[in-house]
Amino acid sequence: MTSRRTKRRVHVLLTVGKGGRLARAIDWLIVGLIVLNVVAVVLATVDSVFERYRSVFYAFEIVSIGVFTLEYGLRIWSATAVPEYSSPITGRLRFGTRPHLLIDLFAIVPFYVGTVVFAFDLRVLRALRLFRFLRLLKLVRYSEAMQRFGRVAHRKRDDLLLAITGSSVLLVVASSLMYFVERDAQPETFSSIPATLWWGVVTLTTVAYGNTYPVTPAGKVLGGLVAVLGVGLFALPASILASGFIEDDADPRRCPHCGESLGTDLPGHER
Amino acid sequence: MTSRRTKRRVHVLLTVGKGGRLARAIDWLIVGLIVLNVVAVVLATVDSVFERYRSVFYAFEIVSIGVFTLEYGLRIWSATAVPEYSSPITGRLRFGTRPHLLIDLFAIVPFYVGTVVFAFDLRVLRALRLFRFLRLLKLVRYSEAMQRFGRVAHRKRDDLLLAITGSSVLLVVASSLMYFVERDAQPETFSSIPATLWWGVVTLTTVAYGNTYPVTPAGKVLGGLVAVLGVGLFALPASILASGFIEDDADPRRCPHCGESLGTDLPGHER
Amino acid sequence: MTSRRTKRRVHVLLTVGKGGRLARAIDWLIVGLIVLNVVAVVLATVDSVFERYRSVFYAFEIVSIGVFTLEYGLRIWSATAVPEYSSPITGRLRFGTRPHLLIDLFAIVPFYVGTVVFAFDLRVLRALRLFRFLRLLKLVRYSEAMQRFGRVAHRKRDDLLLAITGSSVLLVVASSLMYFVERDAQPETFSSIPATLWWGVVTLTTVAYGNTYPVTPAGKVLGGLVAVLGVGLFALPASILASGFIEDDADPRRCPHCGESLGTDLPGHER
Amino acid sequence: MTSRRTKRRVHVLLTVGKGGRLARAIDWLIVGLIVLNVVAVVLATVDSVFERYRSVFYAFEIVSIGVFTLEYGLRIWSATAVPEYSSPITGRLRFGTRPHLLIDLFAIVPFYVGTVVFAFDLRVLRALRLFRFLRLLKLVRYSEAMQRFGRVAHRKRDDLLLAITGSSVLLVVASSLMYFVERDAQPETFSSIPATLWWGVVTLTTVAYGNTYPVTPAGKVLGGLVAVLGVGLFALPASILASGFIEDDADPRRCPHCGESLGTDLPGHER
Repeated sequence: MTSRRTKRRVHVLLTVGKGGRLARAIDWLIVGLIVLNVVAVVLATVDSVFERYRSVFYAFEIVSIGVFTLEYGLRIWSATAVPEYSSPITGRLRFGTRPHLLIDLFAIVPFYVGTVVFAFDLRVLRALRLFRFLRLLKLVRYSEAMQRFGRVAHRKRDDLLLAITGSSVLLVVASSLMYFVERDAQPETFSSIPATLWWGVVTLTTVAYGNTYPVTPAGKVLGGLVAVLGVGLFALPASILASGFIEDDADPRRCPHCGESLGTDLPGHER
Repeated sequence: MTSRRTKRRVHVLLTVGKGGRLARAIDWLIVGLIVLNVVAVVLATVDSVFERYRSVFYAFEIVSIGVFTLEYGLRIWSATAVPEYSSPITGRLRFGTRPHLLIDLFAIVPFYVGTVVFAFDLRVLRALRLFRFLRLLKLVRYSEAMQRFGRVAHRKRDDLLLAITGSSVLLVVASSLMYFVERDAQPETFSSIPATLWWGVVTLTTVAYGNTYPVTPAGKVLGGLVAVLGVGLFALPASILASGFIEDDADPRRCPHCGESLGTDLPGHER
Repeated sequence: MTSRRTKRRVHVLLTVGKGGRLARAIDWLIVGLIVLNVVAVVLATVDSVFERYRSVFYAFEIVSIGVFTLEYGLRIWSATAVPEYSSPITGRLRFGTRPHLLIDLFAIVPFYVGTVVFAFDLRVLRALRLFRFLRLLKLVRYSEAMQRFGRVAHRKRDDLLLAITGSSVLLVVASSLMYFVERDAQPETFSSIPATLWWGVVTLTTVAYGNTYPVTPAGKVLGGLVAVLGVGLFALPASILASGFIEDDADPRRCPHCGESLGTDLPGHER
Repeated sequence: MTSRRTKRRVHVLLTVGKGGRLARAIDWLIVGLIVLNVVAVVLATVDSVFERYRSVFYAFEIVSIGVFTLEYGLRIWSATAVPEYSSPITGRLRFGTRPHLLIDLFAIVPFYVGTVVFAFDLRVLRALRLFRFLRLLKLVRYSEAMQRFGRVAHRKRDDLLLAITGSSVLLVVASSLMYFVERDAQPETFSSIPATLWWGVVTLTTVAYGNTYPVTPAGKVLGGLVAVLGVGLFALPASILASGFIEDDADPRRCPHCGESLGTDLPGHER
């Protein structure tokens, strides 16, 4: 009976937005630990820093994995406190395959795989460091902002898809034409259409590092036309997302459960 | 009689958005073949890939042309199933001059011209590869998104025209001034106004590869002013298109047939 | 009496948007001549073209000046046909100081000044070619689009002024900080704050030719912060202008005479 | 008694937006002096100018400090004219800790600290020149535009925070991936993740000076994806701010005191 109450209390403490002061403290602790994990991965690539604080980095990794493993274990263990997942095995399995729980699992599994399977093989461990960024995904649970971003992207998916399709077609066609125009003058840089795609991407996004550009008059005319016409097309997704956020602010008639718009055809509504 | 029913069935199968599961499968087959054609043109320019899979590329081109020719032939043949085009010759001629059918024709004609007229002249065939991108236009029939893009551009044509005219005037005036300012310091790069237009385009689109830029103090002041004032003007078309999409989403009062707006002056309508 | 009717007819013919088919032909003739004048200035800077068609360029300039002078003379002469300007001298003076007529005057005066005063001094004539771009201003009379652009800019002048002030302050402060950070590492490029303004402008407009950039760690951190914060600020004017065009489309309550908005506080108006 | 009226009059004269013609003249004098101070700091870094007008720069600095000190002193002295701050000591203390007054203090303190404490140590004085930019903050009192900018940023703080968080996460993840992909090919440029952040910032803001870019095929694919996906995200804050200004224009129902929106749910209001 006491165990049951403990389990329920643990479950509530780990559920975002529920519980009292302690629950919020736990939330902030985990969010802080995730951010520190990213900072550690970033700093550990600076050789001088890593050499000096090597043991600190290792210790911090062990502690992080410990906390995340404990958190994951407690979540799975306390899942049966919810009537929906009350069955000890199948209930926990269904609970453990929910997106948030899978993210929690992916955040710790690479460490155990790397340590157990490859027995501290340094090169493998180095590559596995990349997987620590998966821990960032744990933030989704705590961030209403990220959920909102996903909602806006979902809402504008048709427009975004259209802009992305149009951009892709323009990118391939522009790069192909540029390849046929410039390949004789610069056979090294414009050696094939896939190689010319690099020119296309850096030009259409206006990044343009300045290492690939047309030199023939025909190539310059084509490049100029592509820049003038294409830059606008590549800027469309940002404008579309922005308008999505604005509508998201303006429109109070959204389903309180899923965040989807309830439509604009309600009687007595003008927009 | 049976022939007539076959013809009608073929016509329905080839009409986008009609017919059952088989018709949709045919649609997807042709869309897939178009995309693969573009991928083939792109990959064939990588020498190592082309050398290795030369025969695959040739075989794929033959198959594609076969399918597109069959598709075109069946469309023309079955056109008489529609009362509007029932006359065997003049009806088919009128059907064959519709934009979609002309695109279908342009997608296959270059191959036959190249093979028959130039009898496998390799250099001509190489240049003809560019025309394979015309096959992308066939996608317009299947893509509601592309039609929508055209509709939005049509709707905002006045604003777009204004932005493009303003940009062009700014481009010519800015490049001319820069030519007069920089020609003495950099006679090679800024050799004439047309040559300076290249500077103007890459600066105003903010692409700026970094191979042409002013070096004199006067040129830098002019270049700075042009950048500050002009970049906004060149970004206008994207903003205008984006607003067109947003209005397109927001406004449900469009003719269901042509997609044109039904106007904003309906009684009882506030906007 | 006949002279009076001729005068009135000439005045109507030269007034944009009035008169019949002949009046529109005259409009198009002058617009075409203006565009050709700009094309001529641009092409004349290509040495090989200018050498070959030298006499054509001179003849075209004489013809253009003749037509523009005739047009200007007829406008001034026929001004008295309007009751408002009926006085032969003071009326014509008042008519001649209207903006459009001053533009017409500026389009021809440099030629006469150059020829008469400097007696075909080649270097002066060359510099005077720049003034031919003033003829572009004559287009304003014919272009409703340019008038609309001015109207939108006027309407959004507060926002634009704010964005421009903010951008200027950011530009000066960012460049000053960068000067103090980088001057020791790159004394040539970052020799003074005015010299560093060039870095500021090309960075904040994202033009970034790649010839001036920070190299010290502190300079890179500062440059990164400036880029992230500042690029958005410099993009504001474009967004503001775009929104001005959208409102200009959406809002039918404008004064039919001057195009100014009639305000948004009319009773019974929702927006 | 007369002193009291003088004090009240001084207080009114120094309060922006109050007083008659003289008060406005004082406002413009101080605004002009602030702008000239910034111009002086900028020009003084040009060696040739500074050498020639050394004494003018010093004199101008002394005069500026004198005026700003007098202004500050008069403000503090006359504060007791307001009933709220009528207590000679505690009232003036409370008045002196208001943001505007603290800014006034920061504008003059560095000069006195530098002169008194460091006794004309030239290197310290040089570094202190930077603090003169703090005088720009005095403009906030006079600029309704800057207050409006702050209001819009405050209103859109949630959206801005979301865009900035998203951008930061993307920046760190993209730079980390690029580091792992490119470090072997370019160990100098991509020496650590912090060093690679410079690549991330200049690419995602599309500044791209052209001194750091990926060279391996994998790096180019990654860089292309980051550019296409990320540029839009980094452009979001500008779009959000712009929409904030537009709403700020459109919405007349704001509290006249604080500028905050009064909400959009008033009866009889359509939006």
